[in-house]
Amino acid sequence: METIDPTQGKILAVTGGVGGAKLCLGLSQILSPQQVGFAVNVGDDFSHFGLHISPDIDTLTYTLSGLSNPETGWGRGGETWHFIEAMKQLGGDAWFNLGDADLALHVFRTERLRRGRSLSQVTAEIAKKVGIEHEVLPISDDPVPTIISTKEGELPFQEYFVKRRCEPEVNGFTFQNADDASISPALTRWLEDANLVGVVICPSNPYISIDPVLAAGGFGRLIKDLNVPVVAVSPIVHGAAIKGPTAKIMSELQIPNTAVAIAEHYKHLLTGFVIDETDDALAAKIQDMGLSTISAQTVMVTLGDKINLAKVVLDFVRQIGAE
Amino acid sequence: METIDPTQGKILAVTGGVGGAKLCLGLSQILSPQQVGFAVNVGDDFSHFGLHISPDIDTLTYTLSGLSNPETGWGRGGETWHFIEAMKQLGGDAWFNLGDADLALHVFRTERLRRGRSLSQVTAEIAKKVGIEHEVLPISDDPVPTIISTKEGELPFQEYFVKRRCEPEVNGFTFQNADDASISPALTRWLEDANLVGVVICPSNPYISIDPVLAAGGFGRLIKDLNVPVVAVSPIVHGAAIKGPTAKIMSELQIPNTAVAIAEHYKHLLTGFVIDETDDALAAKIQDMGLSTISAQTVMVTLGDKINLAKVVLDFVRQIGAE
Repeated sequence: METIDPTQGKILAVTGGVGGAKLCLGLSQILSPQQVGFAVNVGDDFSHFGLHISPDIDTLTYTLSGLSNPETGWGRGGETWHFIEAMKQLGGDAWFNLGDADLALHVFRTERLRRGRSLSQVTAEIAKKVGIEHEVLPISDDPVPTIISTKEGELPFQEYFVKRRCEPEVNGFTFQNADDASISPALTRWLEDANLVGVVICPSNPYISIDPVLAAGGFGRLIKDLNVPVVAVSPIVHGAAIKGPTAKIMSELQIPNTAVAIAEHYKHLLTGFVIDETDDALAAKIQDMGLSTISAQTVMVTLGDKINLAKVVLDFVRQIGAE
Repeated sequence: METIDPTQGKILAVTGGVGGAKLCLGLSQILSPQQVGFAVNVGDDFSHFGLHISPDIDTLTYTLSGLSNPETGWGRGGETWHFIEAMKQLGGDAWFNLGDADLALHVFRTERLRRGRSLSQVTAEIAKKVGIEHEVLPISDDPVPTIISTKEGELPFQEYFVKRRCEPEVNGFTFQNADDASISPALTRWLEDANLVGVVICPSNPYISIDPVLAAGGFGRLIKDLNVPVVAVSPIVHGAAIKGPTAKIMSELQIPNTAVAIAEHYKHLLTGFVIDETDDALAAKIQDMGLSTISAQTVMVTLGDKINLAKVVLDFVRQIGAE
């Protein structure tokens, strides 16, 4: 494993679930726990069977700990499904698939929250137990539920995303309580750290994974005001999303499925933008927005891919910072 | 399956967990859902990980539905343990073993209770879903937690029973809230039914399984006032308990480990007492208390054993009733 001189400063990565978590894993392999922290979306957190479920935190936790399911990118590897089968027999809601081992995380978290721990505290406790040395930082300890406006009306995030499989046509998003939410204390420490030299927005869905993070407690404004390089990696590669509904949502919002549109979406925040090597032809348009660009292999299949992209992104942040 | 003329009246069976549930299964095989109902202890109910766990209700539910684990008598057959293994990894309490499929029952029940259903309603709903036609009747919808007084101080039931494996020496029991608890509405219907012709106290632990039932809402007094035969089956066979800590507790309470002592314990309530065939020599002493007795094979291993004992008990109740 390559190690980076710690005097080169700290990086904060901002992520949603599966796609972003891949880059976080890459970053965790080349930067120490002091050098990189991971700010995670909690807009898709919800209560199910009375359990507090934090899908993006869990995906990142499983990814960083090596417990993840390599087939799906979410949930645990080697998972079994006896709980949910028994729940179906009882006539309970079974639309949200909860694996037997995964369930321990939700039950543990819910119990701790009920006893007065904050989401950040429980998240840190879980991360430590599963062997993660890096900090997994919920954007806020306050609930900031994402509501999806669709042609069929407003839907809570998981009803749209899992129960309805992103089928209803989307026309907008509300990040409830975002203005009133506070940035979690551990994340605030990262933001206030004078050694923070850059922010990386990972290739998660901009509308339903990253925007809720940026909205919560004014986080987007706060990172802009840091006056450090803010670099995003495009989740759209050659007109398509690697995974999930990003392209479908963009189409429904009448936005072209291009990396240019993603750059446009984030440009008020960004100093640099990472496009896929297959999208080189788009670089000029993005540079016209006043952003630095770099192209790289952004499709991450192997661990090597994740580490390589992490290195490219890190070099890019430092290069911009040095300018 | 033998069927009994329904004009012969209804029977209410009173039970704790494993031992009593065996006789209930036997009764359920020879009496229709209109002819027999099962009043179950809830004194060992407790909250664990924020889940409402009802061990005796669950044991009876699994036993009557055929889902039970024939090896242990509690829990489900074919169970897996991935949840509790993951919980151990997280550092959560793992002293109470929760199987993956079993967990569905607790999560389902807890969610329904949180939404305002009563314990009786949820219990009936679960019983129906797992194919039980007979009524499983929690003694009360109110909490009536059993507290065990030991040489080490007072212990909540499950801490004594499971966490401490009945090791601390017992010197008494408290059935908290028993006086203020109300008999559950469905059970009240059984008690008020003019066709109720007998009560059977199943071979569960008298001190920690049956006494909490008798204490709750004055249930013991209510069944005495019915003026119908009340018959108990001895959980002590030839000086030993079939299963569980009954004999150990009796020793600690300075009570001889005999069926006679059990009859003495219950005699204020009883009209008849069923002893094991190996305890025939004790019949005279029990008859001296003014009780009718009958001896039978009370050790139930096979389904046939359970049905045979159920038939003997039923005939005994009717014989006393006809006198």
